[in-house]
Amino acid sequence: MTRSVDELTTNPSYRAGVIDLLGVLAVGELLAFQRLASDAALAPGTREAAALSGMAASEYGHFVQLSERLESLGVDPHDAMEPFAVALEEYHRMTAPSDWLEGIVKAYVGDGVATDFFREVARYVDPETAALVMEVCSDFGRAEFAVEAVRSAVEADPRLAGRLALWGRRLVGEAVSQAQHVAATREPLIALLLGEDSDAVPNLAEIAGLLNRITSAHGARMGRLGLAG
Amino acid sequence: MTRSVDELTTNPSYRAGVIDLLGVLAVGELLAFQRLASDAALAPGTREAAALSGMAASEYGHFVQLSERLESLGVDPHDAMEPFAVALEEYHRMTAPSDWLEGIVKAYVGDGVATDFFREVARYVDPETAALVMEVCSDFGRAEFAVEAVRSAVEADPRLAGRLALWGRRLVGEAVSQAQHVAATREPLIALLLGEDSDAVPNLAEIAGLLNRITSAHGARMGRLGLAG
Repeated sequence: MTRSVDELTTNPSYRAGVIDLLGVLAVGELLAFQRLASDAALAPGTREAAALSGMAASEYGHFVQLSERLESLGVDPHDAMEPFAVALEEYHRMTAPSDWLEGIVKAYVGDGVATDFFREVARYVDPETAALVMEVCSDFGRAEFAVEAVRSAVEADPRLAGRLALWGRRLVGEAVSQAQHVAATREPLIALLLGEDSDAVPNLAEIAGLLNRITSAHGARMGRLGLAG
Repeated sequence: MTRSVDELTTNPSYRAGVIDLLGVLAVGELLAFQRLASDAALAPGTREAAALSGMAASEYGHFVQLSERLESLGVDPHDAMEPFAVALEEYHRMTAPSDWLEGIVKAYVGDGVATDFFREVARYVDPETAALVMEVCSDFGRAEFAVEAVRSAVEADPRLAGRLALWGRRLVGEAVSQAQHVAATREPLIALLLGEDSDAVPNLAEIAGLLNRITSAHGARMGRLGLAG
């Protein structure tokens, strides 16, 4: 399955799909930036606040890169972001952390699932677009501080494990629910994934494989936090 | 009045003052980052949210610069920040905006007063420290988008002018109140300004002049927003 950069000019349906992809990524990064920075206020001290803030600041940098790419395609970034803003705001509204531990589990799990998903999607787009998607997904390592913090909190108070495991499941549940909402309304993005108008297609079996890989990576991440998946 | 970089090693009281100055700036930038980014959620659309987020992201960059400078002085940045965290958190807690307009007035007015103050303080420190302080205060221009937004909102609904003018006064009142609290408890920073142990001193008349300049610049900024100072 190959897509070429030329398709961005010769194939309007492919072009619309890529604009959707960059738009959802851009608004995702902008909202992740705002929410992570604001969750940093839950930190027990400036050291922990600075770690989450650093992660947030790098999301803002990605937002700028994606906006510039959309502009270079002749698209107003905010027009491209607009169709996805409500679903992503709803995700964050439904998953506002009530304390610092919930905040960092959300940063770790949410960033992880999103990164896995977009890295998979990168396989279905032209090399230039793929390189940008991989780049904005590249510093997942920034959330690693969560692992140590969650593990030692659960060690000190084992009762936390149940609540945080439930929280992790709720995060993924809300993400899937909003993703389904987007899928139902954004044809260009879905066509990009299903390849409706092209033989450069991932088929349904591939999509199922993709979802399995994402789910199992999520389980592995919960395990690293010391929590049931 | 001159201070030399050498005093950072030869004059423990001056060194303690500079560490306090960098510490209060660092925690101020970190909290401003978190609060601006979180206030971006009040924006009417992604365009406005992106403008405030850009301002927040640059505050995070300043935080990193200040932390690195403290480390190069052999100081843990978080130890230097700690004495100021409570007062600054209290300022933000007392001035949480209830809507987008209050948020951008706060960004514009708060950033303006802080920048004026630290630029004045830069006159009392060695050239290297001064250059860093001026640099982290250099992109006040980022808040300029607030001017247009506030003016056109007040034009559309003139009743807003009274509420926002009151809000501006409250912001400065809370800032002064927290600054007094800091002044009462942080001798090294005050000694830096009053020059207690040195003849490189601003005297009390100079301090009064500084406060007058800051107050009148604040009035001018409120005027630019179309609000009574």
